[in-house]
Amino acid sequence: MSTEHPQPANPAQEGVWPYCDLAHLAHLELLTPRLEESLRFFTEVMGLTVSGTEEASVYLRGWDDYEHHTLKLTAAKTSGLGHFAFRTRSPEALQRRVRQLEALGWGGGWTDGDAGHGPAYRFTTPDGHPMELYYETRWYTPSEATRPALKNQAARFPGKGANLRRLDHLNLLASDVRAMRVFMEGGLGMKVTEQIIFSGGDEQGVWLTSNNKTYDVAITKDHLGARGRFHHCTYAVDSREEVLRAADICLEHGVFIETGPHKHAIQQTFFLYVYEPGGNRFEIACPGARLLLAPDWKPIVWNEEERKRGQAWGLQTVPTFHTYGTPPVEALKE
Amino acid sequence: MSTEHPQPANPAQEGVWPYCDLAHLAHLELLTPRLEESLRFFTEVMGLTVSGTEEASVYLRGWDDYEHHTLKLTAAKTSGLGHFAFRTRSPEALQRRVRQLEALGWGGGWTDGDAGHGPAYRFTTPDGHPMELYYETRWYTPSEATRPALKNQAARFPGKGANLRRLDHLNLLASDVRAMRVFMEGGLGMKVTEQIIFSGGDEQGVWLTSNNKTYDVAITKDHLGARGRFHHCTYAVDSREEVLRAADICLEHGVFIETGPHKHAIQQTFFLYVYEPGGNRFEIACPGARLLLAPDWKPIVWNEEERKRGQAWGLQTVPTFHTYGTPPVEALKE
Amino acid sequence: MSTEHPQPANPAQEGVWPYCDLAHLAHLELLTPRLEESLRFFTEVMGLTVSGTEEASVYLRGWDDYEHHTLKLTAAKTSGLGHFAFRTRSPEALQRRVRQLEALGWGGGWTDGDAGHGPAYRFTTPDGHPMELYYETRWYTPSEATRPALKNQAARFPGKGANLRRLDHLNLLASDVRAMRVFMEGGLGMKVTEQIIFSGGDEQGVWLTSNNKTYDVAITKDHLGARGRFHHCTYAVDSREEVLRAADICLEHGVFIETGPHKHAIQQTFFLYVYEPGGNRFEIACPGARLLLAPDWKPIVWNEEERKRGQAWGLQTVPTFHTYGTPPVEALKE
Amino acid sequence: MSTEHPQPANPAQEGVWPYCDLAHLAHLELLTPRLEESLRFFTEVMGLTVSGTEEASVYLRGWDDYEHHTLKLTAAKTSGLGHFAFRTRSPEALQRRVRQLEALGWGGGWTDGDAGHGPAYRFTTPDGHPMELYYETRWYTPSEATRPALKNQAARFPGKGANLRRLDHLNLLASDVRAMRVFMEGGLGMKVTEQIIFSGGDEQGVWLTSNNKTYDVAITKDHLGARGRFHHCTYAVDSREEVLRAADICLEHGVFIETGPHKHAIQQTFFLYVYEPGGNRFEIACPGARLLLAPDWKPIVWNEEERKRGQAWGLQTVPTFHTYGTPPVEALKE
Repeated sequence: MSTEHPQPANPAQEGVWPYCDLAHLAHLELLTPRLEESLRFFTEVMGLTVSGTEEASVYLRGWDDYEHHTLKLTAAKTSGLGHFAFRTRSPEALQRRVRQLEALGWGGGWTDGDAGHGPAYRFTTPDGHPMELYYETRWYTPSEATRPALKNQAARFPGKGANLRRLDHLNLLASDVRAMRVFMEGGLGMKVTEQIIFSGGDEQGVWLTSNNKTYDVAITKDHLGARGRFHHCTYAVDSREEVLRAADICLEHGVFIETGPHKHAIQQTFFLYVYEPGGNRFEIACPGARLLLAPDWKPIVWNEEERKRGQAWGLQTVPTFHTYGTPPVEALKE
Repeated sequence: MSTEHPQPANPAQEGVWPYCDLAHLAHLELLTPRLEESLRFFTEVMGLTVSGTEEASVYLRGWDDYEHHTLKLTAAKTSGLGHFAFRTRSPEALQRRVRQLEALGWGGGWTDGDAGHGPAYRFTTPDGHPMELYYETRWYTPSEATRPALKNQAARFPGKGANLRRLDHLNLLASDVRAMRVFMEGGLGMKVTEQIIFSGGDEQGVWLTSNNKTYDVAITKDHLGARGRFHHCTYAVDSREEVLRAADICLEHGVFIETGPHKHAIQQTFFLYVYEPGGNRFEIACPGARLLLAPDWKPIVWNEEERKRGQAWGLQTVPTFHTYGTPPVEALKE
Repeated sequence: MSTEHPQPANPAQEGVWPYCDLAHLAHLELLTPRLEESLRFFTEVMGLTVSGTEEASVYLRGWDDYEHHTLKLTAAKTSGLGHFAFRTRSPEALQRRVRQLEALGWGGGWTDGDAGHGPAYRFTTPDGHPMELYYETRWYTPSEATRPALKNQAARFPGKGANLRRLDHLNLLASDVRAMRVFMEGGLGMKVTEQIIFSGGDEQGVWLTSNNKTYDVAITKDHLGARGRFHHCTYAVDSREEVLRAADICLEHGVFIETGPHKHAIQQTFFLYVYEPGGNRFEIACPGARLLLAPDWKPIVWNEEERKRGQAWGLQTVPTFHTYGTPPVEALKE
Repeated sequence: MSTEHPQPANPAQEGVWPYCDLAHLAHLELLTPRLEESLRFFTEVMGLTVSGTEEASVYLRGWDDYEHHTLKLTAAKTSGLGHFAFRTRSPEALQRRVRQLEALGWGGGWTDGDAGHGPAYRFTTPDGHPMELYYETRWYTPSEATRPALKNQAARFPGKGANLRRLDHLNLLASDVRAMRVFMEGGLGMKVTEQIIFSGGDEQGVWLTSNNKTYDVAITKDHLGARGRFHHCTYAVDSREEVLRAADICLEHGVFIETGPHKHAIQQTFFLYVYEPGGNRFEIACPGARLLLAPDWKPIVWNEEERKRGQAWGLQTVPTFHTYGTPPVEALKE
């Protein structure tokens, strides 16, 4: 029987979505001046497992992440984002994106890949964040110690610390949110789901997705005006109760809690923000049942007055949320 | 700046996914010989809200369903499935599916639509279930009483009964699971995520999806050999705790609990199965953080021995699960 | 067989505890200048049920409160505490307490009782809060509509709003915390479980109990120096998840959320503080598994530095927590 | 100021309660033919911590147990209960109980105590279970590794396995439930909260308490007619969600799950029953907000027909629940 499905004439013209060549946020590399302590935090306190080590880097994953790793910790002089990567939906989708990026003047170059994945096309966002696209990957194969009882999950539930399940999203700081949004839409074909736009069209933040999650990338204004900084990355747990437990656990381990647990008004994510020992902001969250299934979803736009109300239940947004990023601005000047 | 994205040559050949023309399960129509009691169950006990009434039908929705309705209750002589519908990703996607169905000899005809949505293409599955595809829809607009405090959700949290959030999936019984699977893949372009296949390739069940949810349709073997029957439909809540509360609430209201709360081994859904007053099986579930983001996911296949182990934590599958469906087989003979 | 148990020579000398003549916090009367709105809040939003009405008062209870009522709402010019009452362990225990209060010069007089309970001994605390002790009570008998499926719970789970389960504790503001503590210990035989004592023995707060709960009364310093004001009362739900849902529900209904949800450092109660329409502060909380079973428990004492750390996960205590009480100080001057 | 409180004339005659000389279930000793595996189960899988070792025994505790230990694991030829112990409310209370037991012919003798507690009076129940009473105890003092961030909890939240919080209750099997009930009431002064009585006054089960918990001992009929066997002991976690997680964890570790998670009709405990490697039945439970504060609580009596309905949500009671106990009956004959 024919499995040759009729095809879209032109997804973009059709406004068809999510016909996005990007499948999902795949992993990110965090730089840390305190590798040992950062590693202890992510394994002992957060419950991630080590899937590989290489020179100055350690590869980590949540118990239900299907790839070799979703987090790469690399020793460095200062904190910040080494790079972040999306996996594409196919080899052809990867080629299409490369052509599109080069056609639009946002091109970069190829790398041989890294532990766990094949050749990657590396480039920088308009604000200077190192980003990669790749398709070939190595699915995680459990060891005796990590083999799950149910074969439809990636690895055994660890029963350790915060028991983080999977990488959920990352948040970039940007000196120019609008330029980043245009790049993510035009260059990568991602879709805007929510935005913060102050009077006069001043874009302060944008949340984009490449799939049915309500977002896998958030970009917010860097109030220090710096370029290419990292705000935070987030791992998901299954319940709000587990986020509360993560707060108990962070308290026990002397981890600095910046804000939360509380519920965001934007995207309604139930959050807990902490600083890992290397200085990078990290979020434990429960996205709950948030799915974006409507193909004709219109972006939700929040104005300045609405943002002044703070988070969902009235908690004021901490000032550091707009200024604290990694690396520290001083480090950028070096 | 160009928003004309390069396009896939042929999604099917590329094995690209989820380039599925179907966006998501949109709604279903349940037939009930006890409309009043069924309506009371879905509103008072389950917490759905009425969004319209028409002759012998009432339209209902969960508090975060974005369309006019996700459930249509229709008075009838007996129980069962009136029809179920998927929304496509675009008008063109709808046309493509119609062409494909007709090309494969599975065609039907157009209807003028129904309350809440535009023209629909109606046909029957190989096993005889009435199904529709449509694109044009009416987004739900909250009333004063249902306007949410946060504008990124469809309606106010009701604080009533089980507080069902959204339609999640439906399960069809079939005399020939394989034929249904071939139809869903070849005719509709859906993707298989998990299967039950006994020795000799005997297909006993299949779970398919059109998006990043791990499934929006399940098809299981009707051990009575009947054609086109309904097994159950499912609404999602945000936490396992709410499923437990739903069990407390069903207990208080004398609702028959068939099995659960417990966790399925397949798809790991945390479930509670009850019979609504009209006789149709209904599930309250928490899918947790189950998302299928890997574009190259390989179907998980469960064999007979594995199924004998019962559900995740050892609860044996109730025998009625393989024989109780609606309408009753006797009604089919009339 | 002899059921005449040998008896304690003198509980107090023995330091035996909880040989307290008080059984538990039984109910409280809240004054409100907006009876209708307060009533709607407690029934529609919080899920309490009405068990009686009388002139300017309405009697309410949580679904698992065993007595006729635990909350009495009374229309008044301003907000505040009408009175609060403890039930004693026996008629004799009541007489003993009356003798003790009179012997210590804290005596009051008898009332004929109120809807739901018999004769009560009424007096005022050293700071001026009206308080009652009684033993005779009327157990709540469910109606057809409130009869529970399980006969070991007081009434049916309502499936309404925040579904408050039972009265848990109340918090009084006092101009002299030490005097109140001495009264509660010496006059009523209650036990101190936690305290806030600043340098120089300055008592800022005290938590006392008459049973195995870690507290049923909290007394904290009124920074406005007023006498006999009310801080808040608290109803318990079964899980932290339900406290979070209560926050969602309050958000939907425009109820003012003062602080939370968060976890107290003292007593570790998971809290949500709101103002009911009448102006009185109200708490929805999950005490979790907090039980005080050790007969020789030593009070936990928190100093000024420790209190500066705020709540368990770092949330700073809102300033209004030390100044906002009912009635407003202005009303006291009238 | 006088802290000499007036005293009860005679608690028993007064019907005063809980004027019980017993404070709470303190600990139990489990015998296991597989000490190493049992120890691994209780520490790695359940999250208990070791507080001492002695010859053939290991002492364990939950993170919020205040005494030196609540569980003693002792290597033995077969499984079963070594002994269980209650702590009294005072030294005098201990003496009173000893006098009462001896007066009623249920006396035993003194032991020098054990690791963590002082002299204990040891005797056997009418059905032959070894039981102890003591008062002097050693409060647990946290080490650097177990010191909690909040000083009002006994030890740090472990973030390990099922994270069991505290010992909750134990369940004894008995050949004569009535005789056991009379002993617990008359000899120990405990209070009956719920009972199973079949027609003709045939007592099949009884739940008793010495404090405001709804029960700390359950006694059920041994359908094999054996004397003095152990049914199970239970540790509490804070939420139903944690009981579900415990089930996930048991599944991952290949621990045999006998029944659950589900909710009991009697006492409404949310349960999960497993067999530890030594063969003893073990329960992980969430008692939720169950407190018994009413001094005049009347025992809830369940009859045969009511028990046939199974557990709260309809799960049938597993047959092994009435026959499986430790040690195995064969072992008793040796």
